[in-house]
Amino acid sequence: MNIRPVVEVLQGLATLNSEVTVRGWVRTRRDSKEGISFIDLYDGSCFNALQIVAHSCLNNYENEVLRLTTGCSIEMTGQLVSSPAEGQKFEIQATDIKVIGWVDNPESYPMAPKRHSMEYLRECAHLRPRTNLIGAVARVRNTLAQAIHRFFHAKGYLWVSTPLITAADTEGAGEMFRVSTLDLENLPRGQDGKIDFTKDFFGKEAFLTVSGQLNAETYACALSKVYTFGPTFRAENSNTSRHLAEFWMVEPEVAFATLDDIATLAKEMLKYVFKAVLDDRSDDLKFFAERIDKNVIARLTDLVRLDFEQIDYSTAIEILQQSNQSFENPVSWGIDLSSEHERYLAEQYFKAPVVVKNYPKDIKAFYMRLNDDGKTVAAMDVLAPGIGEIIGGSQREERLDMLDQRLAEMDFSREDYSWYRDLRRYGTVPHAGFGLGFERLIAYVTGVPNVRELIPFPRTPKNVAF
Amino acid sequence: MNIRPVVEVLQGLATLNSEVTVRGWVRTRRDSKEGISFIDLYDGSCFNALQIVAHSCLNNYENEVLRLTTGCSIEMTGQLVSSPAEGQKFEIQATDIKVIGWVDNPESYPMAPKRHSMEYLRECAHLRPRTNLIGAVARVRNTLAQAIHRFFHAKGYLWVSTPLITAADTEGAGEMFRVSTLDLENLPRGQDGKIDFTKDFFGKEAFLTVSGQLNAETYACALSKVYTFGPTFRAENSNTSRHLAEFWMVEPEVAFATLDDIATLAKEMLKYVFKAVLDDRSDDLKFFAERIDKNVIARLTDLVRLDFEQIDYSTAIEILQQSNQSFENPVSWGIDLSSEHERYLAEQYFKAPVVVKNYPKDIKAFYMRLNDDGKTVAAMDVLAPGIGEIIGGSQREERLDMLDQRLAEMDFSREDYSWYRDLRRYGTVPHAGFGLGFERLIAYVTGVPNVRELIPFPRTPKNVAF
Repeated sequence: MNIRPVVEVLQGLATLNSEVTVRGWVRTRRDSKEGISFIDLYDGSCFNALQIVAHSCLNNYENEVLRLTTGCSIEMTGQLVSSPAEGQKFEIQATDIKVIGWVDNPESYPMAPKRHSMEYLRECAHLRPRTNLIGAVARVRNTLAQAIHRFFHAKGYLWVSTPLITAADTEGAGEMFRVSTLDLENLPRGQDGKIDFTKDFFGKEAFLTVSGQLNAETYACALSKVYTFGPTFRAENSNTSRHLAEFWMVEPEVAFATLDDIATLAKEMLKYVFKAVLDDRSDDLKFFAERIDKNVIARLTDLVRLDFEQIDYSTAIEILQQSNQSFENPVSWGIDLSSEHERYLAEQYFKAPVVVKNYPKDIKAFYMRLNDDGKTVAAMDVLAPGIGEIIGGSQREERLDMLDQRLAEMDFSREDYSWYRDLRRYGTVPHAGFGLGFERLIAYVTGVPNVRELIPFPRTPKNVAF
Repeated sequence: MNIRPVVEVLQGLATLNSEVTVRGWVRTRRDSKEGISFIDLYDGSCFNALQIVAHSCLNNYENEVLRLTTGCSIEMTGQLVSSPAEGQKFEIQATDIKVIGWVDNPESYPMAPKRHSMEYLRECAHLRPRTNLIGAVARVRNTLAQAIHRFFHAKGYLWVSTPLITAADTEGAGEMFRVSTLDLENLPRGQDGKIDFTKDFFGKEAFLTVSGQLNAETYACALSKVYTFGPTFRAENSNTSRHLAEFWMVEPEVAFATLDDIATLAKEMLKYVFKAVLDDRSDDLKFFAERIDKNVIARLTDLVRLDFEQIDYSTAIEILQQSNQSFENPVSWGIDLSSEHERYLAEQYFKAPVVVKNYPKDIKAFYMRLNDDGKTVAAMDVLAPGIGEIIGGSQREERLDMLDQRLAEMDFSREDYSWYRDLRRYGTVPHAGFGLGFERLIAYVTGVPNVRELIPFPRTPKNVAF
């Protein structure tokens, strides 16, 4: 049996006028008056379905073929021929159709071939990859992930898996999920009446990580170029289209690198992965352009072509103040840029991606490197037309005395960060890195506005189904 | 500046007798009586260090070069020349050495260049990637991960990220970590006095997943060929060299595939990734062969070359019974194979990797496909010489009536599995998949016996440091 994925048949990789077998699911069936049925078969290997022509002479035509409905699984053998129909080069003249799996009560099949609301599809997250939309998202998601790994690997970066379960020390615990095996009905208590976490699995309080960065720094300060690509967690009670409680992050960390070096790295990475999607997933992009956002292809093409502007935060503030725009959030030196500001800069002022650098230290994290002016840090955000901030990064403070000063300012204890301080005590090096929210990247590429569509099983407040 | 990673210099990619700049950390320094110092510099890009020759004519020779100790970071510019020394083709005659970071109290530097115990290194998990051993592990780990992604991508598989946080329904909750944002000092209670999980972040009890398989099946039953590569969790209180509370798994899931198909897939994948390590990481393998296990290279080479034996579980039991070995665990039809049995089969009887198929249903999971004999299921384990079981997989039960029968036998409720049952109600297809513990794979490749060395920051009972 010459079994072929649909993509190979449609790409002309099977020999014309030879026998070929395909397996997959019925998207639609149309019957002509002349006793011919046309079955669109998909198998997930590409966006388009393959047209199967089934004649009434098939011995199961009446009792099976004519009963096929959307979602039935079949194995089909036939002759590969040129298609007279528009929009497809090939079709298959079926000589044998085996039904593998029927659909229970076709009239109530949850994925019937009509438009479903996004909310409804989320309730059927186990079946929604059968839709055009979620299938296309899955292929684009895969293409982006593979391209990210290829990009870093080719440049000599090591993929490092930083831990998901982490001790409480380093972050604002209010937004973290607790990880525990304590029996909630029988919490162990110490003599002071407080919960005794020494009895918990890890012997102390443990949480799900919000970032692999600090851990990645330990590897960058030993092996020079590393990146993480893994899940991170936020226990924020935010029901917005941009927030997930569980999402994937890409975090490169580079020894001997400055802020400008990682701004360049961010630019190169984005261009590389967008080009990969343009090259490999034009079928899915066409669908997103038709159904979701007509600008998706132009946006990606522009970003691959355009140079990235680079400006200082202070310049950004001046541009915004002189813009004559009425922003909801007033602009003055010291504010964190809002989405409206970011989008104005990228979409209206520069009409190109912009790297904004050197933010006020008071709105940024303790580990960012203090600039010589004493009031800004070597942080950068990449703003892209159509989405705003897509990447955030910084050069890390590699000078022990300056780091200690920042820890003191934030009221963080040196003991909690002793291992992080060790990196500055022993052969410290300038280093820098950035973070990219993977689902936000997919939102940018597909135009799909809600990240709940962009991860297979979204976790959000009150939702942990499947 | 012609800045080069050490690997490029050692591979001869920089022009001989031209100026080159390298950056990294001092591994060792030796001084000759003639006023020449030899500095071994590493940057993580490969196993070997690069020899820097520093003459006393350097203007910071006395007050800096002669004070360099293991772990100091430097940037060094000089002339690339052929090396007269044995074991290296190139060295650099330094014209400028900039010290970037000194080592605090060199005599107490935790990573001094001597043999450290594995236990000690774990206590310094933030510094241990600076050692030969953990650096080599990091490079091999990366090579294996990249090869896994390349292998599946080339075959048309989609990488799917299955959820880490999951509802309680599907697994034995005793071995799972609870994920919660409830305030332990103020647990909300319902009228019945029980803890009210509707007040928790997800509105119900939530845990860390032990496997992405069931979720991956939903995608395979829509897009045909998928795989997961992500973290999984076990709250087992096992302090063994083989157990981690947090580890990475690879789980392909394939529609229209039989047990034999995934046995073939497992074989092809192992051969592919082992060949990648042999091709790309011969420097690190040489180190593992010298210092950890002299058989590592031969074992990989054999596995790439040898065909895999395939036998039924029943045949395996017969072989074991007729072996005249005195096993700790007695052998009879119905037992689960122990490590000693698995290693006897692979190492002594077949002297090759073995796929054991069709295990008794009573020792296997409910979702495995019942064979026609009514007492075995279509499960398989891949046993490899030197480690025993390395992969476990099965064909999944795709027939709704049989699945319901198995659920009833196990006393699992149909409601809890309604979404899993839907895959069998709507266009069901035969499908199969396997799971590979990523750290166990690295153990096999490197010969390092304890998985705590094979993940950057191991999580085990009472250990969640860094």
